[in-house]
Amino acid sequence: MSIEEKNFDVVILGGGPAGLSAAMYAARGAVSVAIIDISMFGGQPSNYLEIENYPAFPLIQGFELAEKLEEHADKFGVEKYPMQEIQSVDLTSNPKVITTFEYKFNAKSVIIATGAQSKKLGVKGEDEYRGRGVSYCAVCDAAFYTGKVVAVVGGGNAAVEEACYLTRFAEKVYLIHRRNELRADKIVQQRAFENKKLEFIWDSGVKEILGEDTVKKLIIENYKTGNISELKVDGIFPYIGFTPNVENINGQVEQDANGFIITNNLMQTSVDGVFAIGDVRNTPLRQVVTAVADGAIASVNAVKYIETVSEQKNFVKNL
Amino acid sequence: MSIEEKNFDVVILGGGPAGLSAAMYAARGAVSVAIIDISMFGGQPSNYLEIENYPAFPLIQGFELAEKLEEHADKFGVEKYPMQEIQSVDLTSNPKVITTFEYKFNAKSVIIATGAQSKKLGVKGEDEYRGRGVSYCAVCDAAFYTGKVVAVVGGGNAAVEEACYLTRFAEKVYLIHRRNELRADKIVQQRAFENKKLEFIWDSGVKEILGEDTVKKLIIENYKTGNISELKVDGIFPYIGFTPNVENINGQVEQDANGFIITNNLMQTSVDGVFAIGDVRNTPLRQVVTAVADGAIASVNAVKYIETVSEQKNFVKNL
Repeated sequence: MSIEEKNFDVVILGGGPAGLSAAMYAARGAVSVAIIDISMFGGQPSNYLEIENYPAFPLIQGFELAEKLEEHADKFGVEKYPMQEIQSVDLTSNPKVITTFEYKFNAKSVIIATGAQSKKLGVKGEDEYRGRGVSYCAVCDAAFYTGKVVAVVGGGNAAVEEACYLTRFAEKVYLIHRRNELRADKIVQQRAFENKKLEFIWDSGVKEILGEDTVKKLIIENYKTGNISELKVDGIFPYIGFTPNVENINGQVEQDANGFIITNNLMQTSVDGVFAIGDVRNTPLRQVVTAVADGAIASVNAVKYIETVSEQKNFVKNL
Repeated sequence: MSIEEKNFDVVILGGGPAGLSAAMYAARGAVSVAIIDISMFGGQPSNYLEIENYPAFPLIQGFELAEKLEEHADKFGVEKYPMQEIQSVDLTSNPKVITTFEYKFNAKSVIIATGAQSKKLGVKGEDEYRGRGVSYCAVCDAAFYTGKVVAVVGGGNAAVEEACYLTRFAEKVYLIHRRNELRADKIVQQRAFENKKLEFIWDSGVKEILGEDTVKKLIIENYKTGNISELKVDGIFPYIGFTPNVENINGQVEQDANGFIITNNLMQTSVDGVFAIGDVRNTPLRQVVTAVADGAIASVNAVKYIETVSEQKNFVKNL
């Protein structure tokens, strides 16, 4: 299979809200823009039922917000490359090079918007029962648990909101949290405490996931008493945080202890012409609104960067 | 007239996009929130005809976006105080105190979102003819110049976009810019260069505004040649940048040389519990999308601040 070579001013890795906003802003700067995703575009909002905190949309379905963000990027002539698994990324060469199975992209500037994914519990049974009782996406899989019993692990907005959502299907939902209070927004907590199908298991964590064909029970440890107990469930949803998607980038830019890419307030990484935005960076808040703002800031600065790299002025434009 | 006293967890000064987003996010944190504006809510977008770079809205009228942002804040129970001219702000007292002619607001946390306003040219005739040929809002006043000749001063997005907008009404629009190239986004520049009613006066500035009852002509200086000339116009629109609205805040928090409030990436100012967001702070990009993201970040951190100020835990709630 031959690999097609493509030249762009800006190549954006990742088609979630951050990437789509960056694409829209960069294209408005009249530079050539490609946006690449391993899947279709839209990112995490596609996996959420409803979003009620993206300003100016009091309530919107996740997939609908994802569609609108993509439509907005389309308006200004962004070239989209969905279903592209990235094989390699070279951020230090000139131009910078990204390869997939089908393409070799040469880029003057790269914006990393690869996001983050659910952190695993790291316990026995988690990988074994993935897709057979272990799920990281309540919206995707809730319907499978109609009338059943499930557990959610975590105490942040995502954990609490998804636990509430699961009560629409499941007969009973346990929320297992390692502390004795939630981290979620107060309004989210209030809803959870009023939900009669929801039961809280405080100061506790999951030690093991047991089952036969599918998940049957959890081994729970109470961190305060040291007590070990069994909990019968048909499914478990870990929502304990995120880990950045940096497989092909590791070591090429400065990262923090958890692997998140370090940027300044212009979204510049430690490598000239390379920017990082949204959940993959050391952001102060992981929200759609902060991701899209990051995208705007990165692209305005990527366009400035391209304009100042004079030796690259005659680079072939691919628009 | 007696002044009514009000207690709130968070008081937000300024009802533009930054303030409205902060109000929405703070209210989601289940704290009591007041938002104060000298006018009605909505801020700068209300003065723009169309906005095409707020992600997920490929094209929206300015006033409509302003309305949606306000509607979103309303959803979570924010108390709104429009038409309140601020008389004094004390950020160092405990609680912090804001007074208007009608109210005295006591606040655990204050979020400053007072924005910025058009910078003046600082030339003779500017104040004299304000409202009689000198305007800082093309969308507000363009219709008065139907079939007439106007000048816009500046080279950024606002100047170029408003100049294009004015060509819908005026017979002729001059764009006077002190450099020989524009700062505006390339896509905005392209539209301007294709507009036949628009004429560029490069490397030049306005020295004086002359008129009788209304503006009649400008004295123009070419900075390269030193040449002084007259330009017959019926109106002039300065779009040369912004100056922060910090009248009652000056000296209480750290500010940069131009008066913009300095914050870290959590939107914290130099005073505990005081945050600054949007155009009034040292932001890397002045856009609706960055303003609303600032609002989200500030409020999440204001709610955390309130939760940690234990001695204020029994503060009267005004919800």
